[in-house]
Amino acid sequence: MAQRHLDPPTDPTAGPTTGPSRKLSTAPPLSTPLERGDPREQGGAPAGEALAEYLRAQATEFLRSLRRHREAGDGGPPARAKSRTGEGGGTGDFGDAALALRRSARRISGTLHTFRALLDAEWSEAMRPELAWLSGTLAREHAYAARLDRLLLALHRLSGSSAFPTQTTGAAEGAGSRDRADAVPERGNLTVGAAKAGALLERQLTLARTRAHSAALQAIGSSRFHAVADSVALLASEVPLTPAAATADLRPQAAAAEERLTDAVAALPLVTAGHPYNAEALVHGLSPDPAPHPQDGPWHQVRLLLRLHRYAREVLYGPYGENPAVDVRLLAAGQALNRHRDASEAAAAAAAAARTPRIAPATAYALGVLHADQRHEVEAARFAFQLSWQKQAVGTP
Amino acid sequence: MAQRHLDPPTDPTAGPTTGPSRKLSTAPPLSTPLERGDPREQGGAPAGEALAEYLRAQATEFLRSLRRHREAGDGGPPARAKSRTGEGGGTGDFGDAALALRRSARRISGTLHTFRALLDAEWSEAMRPELAWLSGTLAREHAYAARLDRLLLALHRLSGSSAFPTQTTGAAEGAGSRDRADAVPERGNLTVGAAKAGALLERQLTLARTRAHSAALQAIGSSRFHAVADSVALLASEVPLTPAAATADLRPQAAAAEERLTDAVAALPLVTAGHPYNAEALVHGLSPDPAPHPQDGPWHQVRLLLRLHRYAREVLYGPYGENPAVDVRLLAAGQALNRHRDASEAAAAAAAAARTPRIAPATAYALGVLHADQRHEVEAARFAFQLSWQKQAVGTP
Repeated sequence: MAQRHLDPPTDPTAGPTTGPSRKLSTAPPLSTPLERGDPREQGGAPAGEALAEYLRAQATEFLRSLRRHREAGDGGPPARAKSRTGEGGGTGDFGDAALALRRSARRISGTLHTFRALLDAEWSEAMRPELAWLSGTLAREHAYAARLDRLLLALHRLSGSSAFPTQTTGAAEGAGSRDRADAVPERGNLTVGAAKAGALLERQLTLARTRAHSAALQAIGSSRFHAVADSVALLASEVPLTPAAATADLRPQAAAAEERLTDAVAALPLVTAGHPYNAEALVHGLSPDPAPHPQDGPWHQVRLLLRLHRYAREVLYGPYGENPAVDVRLLAAGQALNRHRDASEAAAAAAAAARTPRIAPATAYALGVLHADQRHEVEAARFAFQLSWQKQAVGTP
Repeated sequence: MAQRHLDPPTDPTAGPTTGPSRKLSTAPPLSTPLERGDPREQGGAPAGEALAEYLRAQATEFLRSLRRHREAGDGGPPARAKSRTGEGGGTGDFGDAALALRRSARRISGTLHTFRALLDAEWSEAMRPELAWLSGTLAREHAYAARLDRLLLALHRLSGSSAFPTQTTGAAEGAGSRDRADAVPERGNLTVGAAKAGALLERQLTLARTRAHSAALQAIGSSRFHAVADSVALLASEVPLTPAAATADLRPQAAAAEERLTDAVAALPLVTAGHPYNAEALVHGLSPDPAPHPQDGPWHQVRLLLRLHRYAREVLYGPYGENPAVDVRLLAAGQALNRHRDASEAAAAAAAAARTPRIAPATAYALGVLHADQRHEVEAARFAFQLSWQKQAVGTP
């Protein structure tokens, strides 16, 4: 069974390597895998079959989201991200479907990586970058929208204004608002500097979001995307396990993923992070180096490793987990690292906006305050991660 | 004995009320009180005599510092505050003597207030504003120097530059450097924005410090100052206790001072302050209101009440205290509140500098980052105060 997926009609290993130039005459079979991919009862120690089960379920979910995404169509670039918690993105069902697509793509990609020893190596190594491309392309639009929301919220918080405008005038105009460089929309109690900083960020991030939206639409219509969808469709019916995988124990691979995580966490400056107000995150706040803070890198890496660890646990223990306390804490640790990433990128966006030529000093001042505020959010997120990680270490048997 | 001090040659109650216009034909008798003011053994429950003893000792210390101050002479406006911990100020012995003068003046003034029921009311209420004027005038120069040091240190920290310049070029020029508005001294690894922000702050705060220095010199030569010194010289020999004070218990007054402190602390948002990274201190970071943050007021008030409480404990228990653990914690709580005040004022100085007309956007950006950094120092200081206060509450029997 392991190699059957390599047969025609479409060759999933060929798709990713030939990439965008590849043409598909037919759309992937969306409905068949949904019926075939029904979760089955799972018994005994987690072995190869549990892995196949998980991959089939995620592939099925991917195809379902893809169908929803197509049915919802393109609602145009969204005026504002749906939610301010960083969970929403895009508009309505279209954005939700994109989120769900990414969710499955990440899980498939991560699982292929963690359990690569039990899978057809060439196939899974070829598929991962394609899934990463897809997931990254779909993520960008949402990320810009969420970043803008985060920064506008912060500007209002820093202005002592609790009222958050439900609709700012600039946003509705999309990329076109960049022509109104000096227009400052009515922003309640903001200073001129804060209002102008908000308008500048809105202009820059809305433009980036609109471009990301177009890129995502273009990607979804591309042959490269069809090839990925094809591969996932095949995965929904047949998982390319190695011959030995069916009876192999999954736990060593999952343990290795956990070890990579704990090694990476051990290298983090957790003692410093555990001292509130250590002022580390802003150490390069005025550094001449315009590159993103290099100190953030190891934390971003841990975020990815934590995700792989969580997915490996999903493979082993199913959707209801093994130990709810551990799962909740892993989730909390992951959320802290998401907040870390979001604040890090928002701080960089504020710093980048401050380098716009010919801005007013008041605008630059507000962007400086905003940058520092977000770098403190970075530090706060590290503190939160460290707290949940210590609980984790205590809570894990 | 209580009223004897009102006799000629100089009338201490007249001095403060007639103020600067009052002329003294002779300098206050500096040497006599030093010999008469030797501390005596103190026995039994703290009563009026302990209060008199404390006031005499502080008055003696005041006169000793005054003599040192005069002997050291005026070294000119100092190029840089002596210490970066906020403890130094002015230059060498001159600055040290000013610090010691203020230290005694604060203690005398605070003690007159706390134990006013046991002292000649009219006299002590007239003397306190004069001591406050003296103390405030002497404090200003040091405060500007320490503020500049704090801000330049922060600029270097925020630039990831561990090296602190021992002597910046602008500082040595004193107020004259304000003519070089566009000159940016060599500042190692600072960005242009951080370097210009540093130069601007140095110019503004050096000018303020130089003016404060002149004002302090003028104050020390004034008849108003001579009148205060006269009053203190009399206090060193005779304390105006009320007839009932000699046998009165000091503890009710000291307890009332403590109660004023604990009431004020109870009104502080300590629960919020105890949650690290609550982001409260920067809530008005971009507020249109240019006034200092009103949220800082109650903390500044607690700083003053804590000082009064500490001085009352000094009166009751002498220089070696009653419970070293409590004294150490009160000191730590007081230091946290000093840091709160210093950071609050430094943040305001950065915000004020950003309102200088025609500054470059990069300068304004750096000042924004600096402002936010100092507001986070404010928040960190509140967290530290809350920690030492909780320990206090647990540690106090």
